Amino acid sequence: MELKRKVGYEAANLIKDGDVVGLGTGSTTHYFIEKLGNRIEIEEISIMGVPTSYQSFYLAMNSKIPITTLDEHNVDIAVDGADEVDPELNLIKGGGAAHTLEKIVDESAKQFIVIVDGSKIVTELGSFPVPVEVIPHATRTVKDHLIAMGGLPTLRMAERKDGPVVTDNGNFIYDVKFDIKNPKKLETELNTIPGVVENGIFSQIVDQVIVGRDSGIEILKK
Amino acid sequence: MELKRKVGYEAANLIKDGDVVGLGTGSTTHYFIEKLGNRIEIEEISIMGVPTSYQSFYLAMNSKIPITTLDEHNVDIAVDGADEVDPELNLIKGGGAAHTLEKIVDESAKQFIVIVDGSKIVTELGSFPVPVEVIPHATRTVKDHLIAMGGLPTLRMAERKDGPVVTDNGNFIYDVKFDIKNPKKLETELNTIPGVVENGIFSQIVDQVIVGRDSGIEILKK
Repeated sequence: MELKRKVGYEAANLIKDGDVVGLGTGSTTHYFIEKLGNRIEIEEISIMGVPTSYQSFYLAMNSKIPITTLDEHNVDIAVDGADEVDPELNLIKGGGAAHTLEKIVDESAKQFIVIVDGSKIVTELGSFPVPVEVIPHATRTVKDHLIAMGGLPTLRMAERKDGPVVTDNGNFIYDVKFDIKNPKKLETELNTIPGVVENGIFSQIVDQVIVGRDSGIEILKK
Repeated sequence: MELKRKVGYEAANLIKDGDVVGLGTGSTTHYFIEKLGNRIEIEEISIMGVPTSYQSFYLAMNSKIPITTLDEHNVDIAVDGADEVDPELNLIKGGGAAHTLEKIVDESAKQFIVIVDGSKIVTELGSFPVPVEVIPHATRTVKDHLIAMGGLPTLRMAERKDGPVVTDNGNFIYDVKFDIKNPKKLETELNTIPGVVENGIFSQIVDQVIVGRDSGIEILKK
């Protein structure tokens, strides 16, 4: 927890007066957003936030960050968490089911910063299953495609409602175990399946990863 | 668990050849649906099911129950669970976030049967908070209305996604503690709030409640 706070605060200190900021989703970006709200209040800087989920929207609002949209503004810098980061700074994201909107915002940003604790750094992606957001109507056909591609899909079930998890976009999530050789290729192939909205592989769009370790902060760059 | 199975099986035995059956959602109706599929296979009876959620849709499909819709057929008999049942057979439902579609199907049925274990029978509704399904855009204004009505609303948060639970219809759930004097009146008032899709009070539409107790099965009728 302390590591997540450390990298969240570190990233918040990178934001400059006037920036439009992509607000990632999850337990690490939580600290980033709180700290950013804190800076706005204390330093009286002018920042606007573009949320990537209902979660980050509500958190930004409670942190008094003025909110805007991709329709109105370009994002200068997006800060988001990740479930896995490989040596080439490819990511798996989507444990929180927010990866579709996150990818839209993060990819659009002039600069995309990832904040993680050291446990998320891996030599190869794929211990974490790839979250694939699917239109409910396509549940069976997408499953067939995923299996044909060598994946092992599990429909993510909810815990505080009956039946599957429903995303902020009204869709389902398959968590898919893959033996990942080429993240970029897999990312592209998954998105060609009719009914797949977006998958959780983020290849080659990260500018910088801030890693929190007990020994301090490590910066990874492309 | 054994009591839920007992009442589920009891209800499945009430279904007659040719019936169009409303398939409730939850851990008790789970047994009902499985047993119904079993009867269709063994007795070769002709039944169609109208699911009340993605959960009951998938379960019906796996149980080989032919599936239809309210657009195509009227429901002869609906069987559903409940979170609370009072002496006048008013219900609170929606712990599984499926109460909107459940109410549509259950209310439309010629006969509506509720199956519960004895722990759900109460002298007065309201220990269980009332689930209120809300259009996301109206989260703040609906909350204000609920508080003005004397309710204590909590936005239901998800556990396998970040942020709030999203229903099968793409909406949120407020779980609202109320001191319930008049269920029918509260049910109506809640639904007049702009942004409320449906609430979990089911007043005066139940024909029969099958209660599973350690001592056996009890039948409650209006």
